This record gives sequence, C-alpha cells and structure tokens, in this order.
Amino acid sequence: MASLAKFPNYTNQTLDSRRISHLHSRTKAFHGQISFRNSNLSFNLSSNLNSKRSSRGMRMVVSASLIEPDGGKLVDLVVPVGPTRELKRRQAERLPRVELERIDVEWVHVLSEGWASPLRGFMREAEFLQTLHFNSLRLDDGSVVNMSVPIVLAIDDATKQSIGDSTKVALVDRRTNKIVAILSDIEIYKHNKEEMIARTWGTTAPGLPYIEEAIKSSGNWLIGGDLEVIEPIKYNDGLDNYRLSPAQLREEFEKRGADAVFAFQLRNPVHNGHALLMTDTRRRLLEKGYKNPILLLHPLGGFTKADDVPLSWRMKQHQKVLEDGVLNPDSTVVSIFPSPMHYAGPTEVQWHAKARINAGANFYIVGRDPAGMSHPIEKRDLYDADHGKKVLSMAPGLEKLNILPFRVAAYDTKKKKMDFFDPSRKDDFLFISGTKMRTLAKNRESPPDGFMCPGGWKVLVDYYDSLTPPETNPKFREAVPA
Amino acid sequence: MASLAKFPNYTNQTLDSRRISHLHSRTKAFHGQISFRNSNLSFNLSSNLNSKRSSRGMRMVVSASLIEPDGGKLVDLVVPVGPTRELKRRQAERLPRVELERIDVEWVHVLSEGWASPLRGFMREAEFLQTLHFNSLRLDDGSVVNMSVPIVLAIDDATKQSIGDSTKVALVDRRTNKIVAILSDIEIYKHNKEEMIARTWGTTAPGLPYIEEAIKSSGNWLIGGDLEVIEPIKYNDGLDNYRLSPAQLREEFEKRGADAVFAFQLRNPVHNGHALLMTDTRRRLLEKGYKNPILLLHPLGGFTKADDVPLSWRMKQHQKVLEDGVLNPDSTVVSIFPSPMHYAGPTEVQWHAKARINAGANFYIVGRDPAGMSHPIEKRDLYDADHGKKVLSMAPGLEKLNILPFRVAAYDTKKKKMDFFDPSRKDDFLFISGTKMRTLAKNRESPPDGFMCPGGWKVLVDYYDSLTPPETNPKFREAVPA
Repeated sequence: MASLAKFPNYTNQTLDSRRISHLHSRTKAFHGQISFRNSNLSFNLSSNLNSKRSSRGMRMVVSASLIEPDGGKLVDLVVPVGPTRELKRRQAERLPRVELERIDVEWVHVLSEGWASPLRGFMREAEFLQTLHFNSLRLDDGSVVNMSVPIVLAIDDATKQSIGDSTKVALVDRRTNKIVAILSDIEIYKHNKEEMIARTWGTTAPGLPYIEEAIKSSGNWLIGGDLEVIEPIKYNDGLDNYRLSPAQLREEFEKRGADAVFAFQLRNPVHNGHALLMTDTRRRLLEKGYKNPILLLHPLGGFTKADDVPLSWRMKQHQKVLEDGVLNPDSTVVSIFPSPMHYAGPTEVQWHAKARINAGANFYIVGRDPAGMSHPIEKRDLYDADHGKKVLSMAPGLEKLNILPFRVAAYDTKKKKMDFFDPSRKDDFLFISGTKMRTLAKNRESPPDGFMCPGGWKVLVDYYDSLTPPETNPKFREAVPA
Repeated sequence: MASLAKFPNYTNQTLDSRRISHLHSRTKAFHGQISFRNSNLSFNLSSNLNSKRSSRGMRMVVSASLIEPDGGKLVDLVVPVGPTRELKRRQAERLPRVELERIDVEWVHVLSEGWASPLRGFMREAEFLQTLHFNSLRLDDGSVVNMSVPIVLAIDDATKQSIGDSTKVALVDRRTNKIVAILSDIEIYKHNKEEMIARTWGTTAPGLPYIEEAIKSSGNWLIGGDLEVIEPIKYNDGLDNYRLSPAQLREEFEKRGADAVFAFQLRNPVHNGHALLMTDTRRRLLEKGYKNPILLLHPLGGFTKADDVPLSWRMKQHQKVLEDGVLNPDSTVVSIFPSPMHYAGPTEVQWHAKARINAGANFYIVGRDPAGMSHPIEKRDLYDADHGKKVLSMAPGLEKLNILPFRVAAYDTKKKKMDFFDPSRKDDFLFISGTKMRTLAKNRESPPDGFMCPGGWKVLVDYYDSLTPPETNPKFREAVPA
C-alpha cells in the first residue's frame, strides 16, 4: 500500500530528504545548509535529464543544459517584428475595445514573454478554476504545471455589452489610449470576487494592497483568451534594459556557461543577510560539483504596496551592492521580474518559483514568510512564517525545481555582522525588520555596522530624503530661516 | 509543445470528450446522456485495468473487478476483535484525553473505515496544507490522490497544555465519556480558522452551517496523528445496519456480481427527477455493454443543517421509493455515508466522489450545484451552479473515476412527469426546489402528480407533522376545542 509522502519538517534540526516522485528528486536545503538526497551527489539539475545520473557511488557529470520551461517550450506572444505588426494593429482598431489598467498591462507583459508558460493569454474559466482549486494546470498530455495565482482580466457590464458576439477584442492601455494586444477566441465568465479572493489570499479582510488596487472596483466579468501582443511592453523609465525576458535570461545563462542557476526573488533593498545567503548558496553549489553556478538576482518590478521602496531606488541600491563587492558581478545577473505583487504568501511564492523555472532557474531560494505581510485588520502576520517554504516543497508542478529553504539571517551583535540565526545564543541576535530598516533610513539613522554596505544604505537614505516634504526636511528648513 | 488540457464546456450542446492522461480515460455524460470517449466502447472500468481494453472496433470484455481504492489498499483503523481491544482501552485510559464533539466522532467513523484512504488519522500539517492548497495528497510513490476537505481535530489551549510531551492521546466522546480511539505519533499545529475557512469554502461570511457548528468555537490548535479506533462506531438509532463500510460495500457489490457501480450522493428525499436520472444511467450503462451495473444510493448520514430533513425520515422515504418500485431493489444498494456535510460546493463534491471510489464506485453522478447552498448573507447562491461538475472533471486524483454530469430534471407540466429540462420549451417546466418541496410538505399540500411516489411523499408530510408544535397543529387543535 502506498503511504503518504513525508515532507521535510522545517522545525527540526535534521534534514529529512526524500523521494518526491518517480521522475524527479528534489534537493533540499535546511537552516542555511544545502543537503542533497544522496550523499554521493545525485541531484537533479534539470528536468530534461541531459545530465548523466549517478550510478552507485559515482560522481555525476553535471551538464550545462538549462531546466526545461513548463509545457516544454517557452511561450512568446509578441507579434514578430515586420509588417505583421502594422497589420495586427489595423485589425485591432476595428475590434471592440477593452481598457487595461496599469496592473493589467503588467500581466500582458508577463504573459507575452512566457513567464507563465504554457499559458497563452488571460485565463479562461477552465484555467481559472484549476488555479483556484488546485494551484496547477493539467496539460493535454496529462502532465501538470504549477499555476497558483489567477492571471485574469476583468471587464464591466458595459464592456461586456459592447463586445457582443465578437470573438476577439483589442486591449488598450487606458493611460496612453494605445492598442497593446489582441485577445482572440475569447470566453467571458463570472467574476466572483469574494471566492477568488478567499481562495487566493486565504482571507477576505479588507485592505489587502492588490485587492484594493486591482480587484475591488473592477468589473463583474472576467475575459479570457489567446493573446497577441503588438510589440514588446516598454516602460521608458530608464530600466527597460534590466527587463530581460525569460528567453533573454536563458541566452545570458548559456552565454555565461552556467551549469546551475539559483534565483533570488526580492522586493526590498539587499542587506548583508540576503547577500550572505546568496554567496553561501553559491559556495555550496561549487562544493557539490557545479563549476559555474549563476545567481539570478531578480527584483520584482510590477505593482508593490505604497510603503515598499520603489523599483528605481531599489535598482540603484542593488547596483551599489554589486559595486561595493558584496555580490560578485561575474556570477550574478541582475534583472527585473515584471510581475505585480499579490502579497498572497504560500499561494504567491509558487508563482514566484514557477516563473523562474521558465527563465531557466533550477534552484530557488526561499526564506521566512515569502510574499507575506501583516494581516490587514488583525495584529498578526497574515500567513504562518513556515507555510511558504512548506507549500513550495509540496506544490504540484514544481518537482523539477530544487527548493532551497534557509534559516533567517539576523544581526549578530557579537560578531558584528549578519549571520544565520543561532537559537542557542538568541540574545546575541538583533532582528531588523523591513519596517525597522525603513524607519532607520527615514530618520537618517545608521544601522549597525555590517548590516548593509554603506553605498547601498546611502541610496535608501537618499530615497527617504527625496520623499520628505520641504517644510519638514532639515536641509530645506535651514535654507528658510524662521 | 504541450498544450493546456481542454475540459468539457457544459454550457454547450455538443460533447467534448478528450483524453485526460496517459493512463486514464474518463467517461463523460452530458445533459442526461452518457457518451464515451471512443464510439466503439473503450472505457475505463477500473484503475487496476483488469478489464480487457478494446482494440480497433472490437467490443471490450467488461471485467467484474472493482475500482482500486486510493493508495491501493483500503485503510481499516478499527482494532481487531479480541483481547487487543481491552488492552488498547486500558492503554488509552492512561493517556491524556482529548474530548470529541459529535462531528469529531463522525470523522473518526469516516477515517476508521477507510472512506478517506490512504489517510490513517486526523491530518497532520503536511496533509492539511496539501488539502488546503492543492485539494490532493502526494503519496510516497509520487502518485496523487484527491483530498479536498480538511479532516482535522481541533483542541484548545488547556488540552494542548495537558498533553504536554505525550506522543499519544486518548479520544473520548464528550457525550458518553467513552474512550473511542487512540491517536499516536501526534503533531499539534496552529488552527488558523480564517485561512482554513476561506480556502475551503471560498468565503468567510458568517452563518455557514458546518462552521457555526464545528469550527467557530473550536480550539486554536489542530492535532493530527495515526488513529486506532477501539471498536466500530455505532449510533444505536436503528440505522446501523445501513451503515456499510467501504469494505462491506465492496463485498456486497462483488456478491451481486456488479461490473459497474454508479454512486448517487444525496441529502434530500428522492423525487422522480433523481429516480429518472438513476434509471437512465443504468439503462445507458447496459446499452454500453455492462451486464450488471449496480446503483449505490448513498444518503449522507452525518451532520446536516437544521432545515434539511433528518436522516431517519430520509431513510424511511428512500425505503418507500424502493417499495413503490420507482427504483429497482435488485440493482440498488441503499447505504448510509457517515460523513458530515460541509456545504462547500466544488471543494466538497470532490470529497463526495473520492470517498465513493474507496467504496468501489467507478461512476459518479453529479448534478447542478452539488453540495451548494445559498450565500449566508447575500441574496445569491454561494457557488456557481456549474462549478461543481467542472471542478470534479478537473480534480487531481479523480482521473480513474467516470464522472457523469447530468442536466437538471424538472417537472414537465405537459407530460405530467419529471423529465430532463428542455430549454427549447422552457415554459412547460416547473422547477421544484428543495425549499419549495419542504414548504409543500410542511403545509400538507400535494406536489404535482408524478413529482414523487405517493408513499415517499407521505413520509415527508408525516415528518413535518411530527415537527408542528401542538398549538398550531390542526390535528391537535381539533382535540382541544376553543
């Protein structure tokens, strides 16, 4: 009789590695340590199994081929350069129009480059229901890919009316009035906001950032279909060069000869705790026999909540961290992940991991309470801090990804540096939360030595300076004597 | 490149049969019609594939072997008859005690007989998280079984405290103070009620029956572990003979030489619309080559909401339906399904189907809005009426089950009988909802001829008579002249 699969218990000190399926093993890290299923180095570099598997006691030859994207082929929904674009644009001009808000355009961007492969457009109801109930999609060949957040487009009653019997619509950026894409073979179905929110966020409490911004006042219908994006989505904010598509990232990893790619998702400034983890991961991958593990430092570039540091400042900060030598530019690719942020904890972390598979990452670093936040109306965190990494280790469709959970890093007041938290001398450690970090920078106070490289910290202080209204900014007050 | 699986669109008139996976085909019914994947009768009788598969154009030989239970072997958690029982009972007396409410005992019953196979006790956190996020459990061999509702046991702070470091607890029925079971290798974890409710019901609106009864005032911790049930759960309500375990049902089906078992879950009196569907299903299974399809008429016997007809009256009504010849006793097994009712729509219908696989059913009939109810605070149904059957057809772990969705039956005022609703002459049909049916019976009014067999209807009227308080009951009022 088959027994239930055992998943690692992240509250124990010992590593509980195990076989997840016939096809795929999964490499596990624990409390800052990466450990592998077989002590003699049998791990799964990629799902296409080009790497030679170890036989008893033999070292594995690590292949340089990248992990296969979900569905086998990276989806690319941008109309090829050339006369077709003009043709499509003119075709679109005759179609019923659906207006896109900022976040909708971000999803068009995400879909167009294949981050959500094999999804080819906004979800129809069959995809939507599978996402809500199973966090995964079944493919025609019976295999399963992960898909945990609904990628949907809402329309209101009037728009639905105006579409009538048309099987196609033009998607138009409301801010520019520019046609962005054509959605074909459309399906319109009910937008049950309450159910979608409850099943995605595990709460219906008011005040969740994405819901307030993108769902609350959206229409009562969802429209799904196949997307053709007229031309690549650009933001013209000086950062488009950092917005590498999954195909471009794969090209870059191949150019660099990466034999392992480990992704680090973030939406905050990089402090030395993060850096410790990333350098430690690389060191261990090298120890395990990889010759050239490449870090994908992958800040989220879409919608974030109002008190997060804006993308442009975060990018400046990340640049300083590389300039200051905290991370090694030779083994690091910094790029922007175009997705908006849901703050949906264990549900969203699956999306963050899945999208990185499509970009070629076969190792994914996951920390405490990924994509978590405070409960909007109760005095507690919305999600259990351990659920993110647990759910990630169990998620259907992510078996081919090596999940690297890690112990939280904190400031060690004895060693005067960021280090992995040691519960046996817990009083030596200082936890500096995102809120605490922001408050320090806002007040132009310095964090303890070794928390963040000085160049990076200065960027943060500059950011908060730029926010301070003139009348309360000391620099300006000095210039205007009372 | 793999493409997304297409699921049948139940709003169309045409059947969209398709292959779900390499291993399993799925038989589909549509608008009261059962259709099969290949017109030359290639369908999947059971997952253990004992039946000979059709080759091109040849008729398949249908085997009598029943569908395999989830996990390969039916779980049985009752301590074997004999001295071990007394031993276990004495062992339990020395353990910390956890008190069970009525619904907890119903879950012990469900677990003990293997309805939730391969689950061997109340869920630990790893099972709980997989249920909440994926509605399924991964087994050690990498395969997946369906598991959509959390089967959990809540304890309060004081009970947690009293358990201390013990690895085992005794489960005690609070109503009788009798030891029911031992739970071993226990794991205690947080009971985040809001998240569990949101992800299971798709709403957190107050007033849902199961939540009010079993969750709202329950403790802040969940306790999981392996269950050993001292002796079979009995209710001593005169109906225990109807409570066949999955093993007993399988024995019965084999005794009868069933070559197909089709299950009908219900928690309402059987009207002729239900009967039409069941007899029609049998007719079509016979047409398709089965020699002896057996109906499992399977009323739910656990907790139901206050305005549902109680089990004892429903059983009387079902008995009348068989006596009156509406259903054929020779091809029908009436038994009680011991699970409590969640009223959790698309999430719960998966549980209802999965449990019947374990009882040997390989066909499952699903109607409009299964396990649905009105939204507790808004004027609408809680779930989309089509989502239940759609989600069921997509659900991981249910691929081996043949899902038989059917068109709603209604009273045809022209034919003066229950028939499948024909939208082309919709004004001829009268919809008699559960509420309407109950109101008619309560007022001792008769439904239209042909809605329900007279014997069955009389049981309903008798039930409502038995409820009416003496002062408003005409029979009693006559006896007490004003």
